[in-house]
Amino acid sequence: PKIVTLPGDGIGPEVTAAAVAVLREVAPDVTIEEHLIGGIAYDTHGDPFPQVTRDALKDADAVLLGTVGGAQDSAWNLLPRHLRPESGLLALRKALGCYANLRPVRVQPGLEYLSPLKAELARGVDILIVRELLGGVYFDGDRKIDGDTAYNTMRYTTPEVERVARVAFWAAEQRKGRVTSVDKANVLEVSELWRRDVTALRDREYRGIHLNHEYVDSVAMLIVSDPSRYDVIVTENLFGDILSDLAAVIPGSLGLMPSASLGDGAGLFEPIHGSAPDIAGKGVANPAAAIMSAGMLLRHGLKRPEGANQIDRAVALALREHPTRDLGGKADTQTFTRAVLSALE
Amino acid sequence: PKIVTLPGDGIGPEVTAAAVAVLREVAPDVTIEEHLIGGIAYDTHGDPFPQVTRDALKDADAVLLGTVGGAQDSAWNLLPRHLRPESGLLALRKALGCYANLRPVRVQPGLEYLSPLKAELARGVDILIVRELLGGVYFDGDRKIDGDTAYNTMRYTTPEVERVARVAFWAAEQRKGRVTSVDKANVLEVSELWRRDVTALRDREYRGIHLNHEYVDSVAMLIVSDPSRYDVIVTENLFGDILSDLAAVIPGSLGLMPSASLGDGAGLFEPIHGSAPDIAGKGVANPAAAIMSAGMLLRHGLKRPEGANQIDRAVALALREHPTRDLGGKADTQTFTRAVLSALE
Ligand SMILES: CC(C)[C@H](C(=O)O)[C@@H](O)C(=O)O
Ligand SMILES: CC(C)[C@H](C(=O)O)[C@@H](O)C(=O)O
Repeated sequence: PKIVTLPGDGIGPEVTAAAVAVLREVAPDVTIEEHLIGGIAYDTHGDPFPQVTRDALKDADAVLLGTVGGAQDSAWNLLPRHLRPESGLLALRKALGCYANLRPVRVQPGLEYLSPLKAELARGVDILIVRELLGGVYFDGDRKIDGDTAYNTMRYTTPEVERVARVAFWAAEQRKGRVTSVDKANVLEVSELWRRDVTALRDREYRGIHLNHEYVDSVAMLIVSDPSRYDVIVTENLFGDILSDLAAVIPGSLGLMPSASLGDGAGLFEPIHGSAPDIAGKGVANPAAAIMSAGMLLRHGLKRPEGANQIDRAVALALREHPTRDLGGKADTQTFTRAVLSALE
Repeated sequence: PKIVTLPGDGIGPEVTAAAVAVLREVAPDVTIEEHLIGGIAYDTHGDPFPQVTRDALKDADAVLLGTVGGAQDSAWNLLPRHLRPESGLLALRKALGCYANLRPVRVQPGLEYLSPLKAELARGVDILIVRELLGGVYFDGDRKIDGDTAYNTMRYTTPEVERVARVAFWAAEQRKGRVTSVDKANVLEVSELWRRDVTALRDREYRGIHLNHEYVDSVAMLIVSDPSRYDVIVTENLFGDILSDLAAVIPGSLGLMPSASLGDGAGLFEPIHGSAPDIAGKGVANPAAAIMSAGMLLRHGLKRPEGANQIDRAVALALREHPTRDLGGKADTQTFTRAVLSALE
């Protein structure tokens, strides 16, 4: 199988290198091809998602991404929107047809102390957030800024809702069988459609799943005050962006959050943390999320659950024995990566 | 001065009665007129915001609202959208022209233990969220559900952005002088307008204010992991709905969160908690947020800061000595209200 790696900007190259080292060990038969994305791709090719990268994806089985983007005051942020690093990422998601973004939120036993929540609330949390990734206000073409008025359009169609809801129901079948669909149906027509279609699909094809509906403002509140009530959460693109970042605080460090984006073709696997320009190049970034994303790549992209489990176990061990600086420990990127490598059985 | 009270549904009448008792004590000269809103108004007049209520607002100096809405399985939720209790509330906000919703988030000294956050994070939190209340996806007429597609439109104009930003800058001048404007400018044109206009207004008229811009997903994360970094937060309607409910968990009980909605005419003052149909009519609801909303009514609606301070001090005392059930205490609505009344100096 062929994997394309897109290290990107900031700490992206460092954490991707760590993930690649682990991947080579667990899956020595894969071919790895590295390409540019984001700000570095703009600097090199004048395009944050250049044609050469696009071409390389054609026969890829999975894509491993680092991070894209620069500091708040980066010159990249002064570019026209379509040339900024983030646009490269959005274009990549679109090109791959990755409509379902899976973000597991898990508090590792023994690491509850990292959470901003009281330990008794954080303990045992295990939520899977499924975010719709190709619809809503993110991609709808009906958008404009013109003089003193601007608008964007939150649009969904039934097929878009159904395909992502299917992923949530499928995931729930392998977990506790409960799905919470999140919307703002008391105010938005687009949420009325979302709620209707998710319910109809459950009634038609997933009768074994327990489905409930909650409002996004209420979930924002409950996910931090009573996280254990959730199993699988499914929601539209913008709500998913907000809720999954919010949920990421529960384990206590963004450095522990991997993600998988699945769809029609090759999946996209990436840590959810940003490019952290302040520590880029210093060799101190926590590569755990990137390594765990490589684990998700093995599980969902290459269908090798044994390899994925191997990585998860090794990361859990390394986190306990060699915590990185963001976790209050001392390990740098290399020390942590070595710890993972030597914990692989 | 004339105050209109709209007790509404669920626990609304109980907590409003408590607030009115305190108001009569602190401001014996005000005239109080009670009217219907929400589900109860629909049941009585076939309209969640009936003409008789609308008429009563014409010469009101301020409006004190309880709560609207029923349980998830309430028959009200099967009505067409414009007849549901929530639509009564939205129509009321519109009729009053209340474009700026102020939600203070304050952790009272000694009550840190109520927070789901670790005590050291909750201690001393004092944030003011200013939510735009009459624009964005909530009211824009360009919305539809039709067959297998639906959409809503997030629209803002410069005057809408400026009037709410002014409220945030004005509030910051009386606090620590820092405003964080929240948007999703890396993806949305409507956020680009928001950011541009907030910045321009600061540069023109509020040069003493320290303004910064953050993305909504990042704020959702930081407001719970590092709440002390914020002073005043200003944002559009939907982001404000989500973030203010989220921030409400910091003090540990929704029962402690008042709000003020200000605009062209009479202000609207209401607790942010819901109608809690499960405990309605039992006399156990925590009326603190409604009483504190009456305090905000004195401060912002009638310009009587002394009365407002009197109420705030009395509530703080009552909370420590007679905590209600939602706070792990035993006091019922009446006991708590009496404690507030006797703590008024
Ligand atoms: C960088 C940005 C466009 C992106 C998003 O909003 O999708 C990010 O916040 C994320 O969640 O991956
Ligand atoms: C009930 C609902 C329409 C309302 C809103 O979204 O504005 C509520 O959530 C609030 O925040 O006051």
